[in-house]
Amino acid sequence: MKVLFVGTGLIGGSFSLAMQKHGLLTEAGGYSRKMSNLDRSKELGIISVAFDNLEEGVKWADWIILSIPVDVIDRMLPGILDIIREEQVIIDFGSTKGKICASVRNHEARARFIAAHPIAGTEYSGPDAAFPDLFTEKLMIVCEEAQTNQAALKQFEQVCKTLQMNVEQMGAEAHDRHLAYISHLSHITSYALSNAVLQKEKDGHVLLDLAGSGFESTVRLAKSSPEMWGPIFMENKQMVLEALDSFLDYSTQFRELLNADDQEGILQFLEEGRKIKRVIK
Amino acid sequence: MKVLFVGTGLIGGSFSLAMQKHGLLTEAGGYSRKMSNLDRSKELGIISVAFDNLEEGVKWADWIILSIPVDVIDRMLPGILDIIREEQVIIDFGSTKGKICASVRNHEARARFIAAHPIAGTEYSGPDAAFPDLFTEKLMIVCEEAQTNQAALKQFEQVCKTLQMNVEQMGAEAHDRHLAYISHLSHITSYALSNAVLQKEKDGHVLLDLAGSGFESTVRLAKSSPEMWGPIFMENKQMVLEALDSFLDYSTQFRELLNADDQEGILQFLEEGRKIKRVIK
Repeated sequence: MKVLFVGTGLIGGSFSLAMQKHGLLTEAGGYSRKMSNLDRSKELGIISVAFDNLEEGVKWADWIILSIPVDVIDRMLPGILDIIREEQVIIDFGSTKGKICASVRNHEARARFIAAHPIAGTEYSGPDAAFPDLFTEKLMIVCEEAQTNQAALKQFEQVCKTLQMNVEQMGAEAHDRHLAYISHLSHITSYALSNAVLQKEKDGHVLLDLAGSGFESTVRLAKSSPEMWGPIFMENKQMVLEALDSFLDYSTQFRELLNADDQEGILQFLEEGRKIKRVIK
Repeated sequence: MKVLFVGTGLIGGSFSLAMQKHGLLTEAGGYSRKMSNLDRSKELGIISVAFDNLEEGVKWADWIILSIPVDVIDRMLPGILDIIREEQVIIDFGSTKGKICASVRNHEARARFIAAHPIAGTEYSGPDAAFPDLFTEKLMIVCEEAQTNQAALKQFEQVCKTLQMNVEQMGAEAHDRHLAYISHLSHITSYALSNAVLQKEKDGHVLLDLAGSGFESTVRLAKSSPEMWGPIFMENKQMVLEALDSFLDYSTQFRELLNADDQEGILQFLEEGRKIKRVIK
């Protein structure tokens, strides 16, 4: 199978390396608006063919996998479906699913499209961040699977299973709400924490070179790519606002407990939060 | 040297194991209000002698190391200094330093006390969480060092260096402000995030078993011991409120940018936050 990777960074690049590792690719092609990314991806063995023309790349491929910012997926996806042939499949790996699914809901070639989201990643980005085991024992979520050609879906799920991934099906709206809470919100708190601390450092009141691993853990997601994450927050605006408001409510509640020296209330707040032990090992 | 560990959990227990590993202890004693902790600490090799009477333990020891909640340190420290002999040294490992230092500032045995804080830890607690390499290449902060007997301080710093720790001296107020931003705030955002997400899970809208490593990273500190952390927030109330307010300002600023669909503003917010790359590898 020949796969065109539109976007060969952390996610697309790792998926190519994983498919290669499991002997699932005859050839990996790449398309990017940044020629330097394609050159680097070739050097790293992520792709062997680089296309500077998207249409040519699409014609060449059996599968087309989009691992690019979600707003670019929105703009690009209908046009690719316009030119796709019957046996081809296009898959997107965007971190939001509602708007992307809506953008092609009534497209005549909708069945050739698989709306997917691998729950895997690191705070790094670009081809150099890619590695073949990123997806091992991780989850692949597929949305609106009933609108996808079932043979194509089955083949995709088989590839995921070969990569030792679990596959779950989920509605696009449920996906976006879920991700707002367990991923998008975590990124916002990291970026906000980073901003607050960096500002204090500028004022000369904090020495960041003394920070321990706890700080690092809560702030590492702030290293993620703004180009990827800005569009995610905007596409999932309503759910993200809902999640952020809930978080701000709890943070403000803690502030009030502390300001009132409410020892019992603080302990209860911490005990409630600590119940996350049940799910996070 | 015989050391009495008052508190033999993650921090005290690890310090005992580290000193033993480097051949710095002839005997490790333990005191705790929880007898079960002492029994377990003996099983784990953290201590060999258990005291159910604090005064007896203090008399027995050359050094006394306090690794217990900071409010308990406040209450316990003056009483121990009352009975300490000239050649003995008491060291506290509390995560706040201002109130603890103030509590003994005018004590006639003040010079026998070292106010220290090892910048090391995990989200786990109790004797079972202890391990000998917790402190390797970590930082030991010492506050108000001028008030401590210089020979005792030198000996303590030598022990830290043998444990491959760096030692830095810092004012108690500077320490508490610094820690508010790079440690205490991180714990609060983790607990608040955990509360928000667990509430949503109760409502049936979030499936926590699908959470990825990014969520785990931002929320893991919420597994920390409320018994240790409640008093830290309360003792460092003013600095923590200042740090939390700055964080809430930035979070609210992000909320407004998103609500206003301000793409440029969002990208700028993320780019600013991303500058943490400079300090977090």
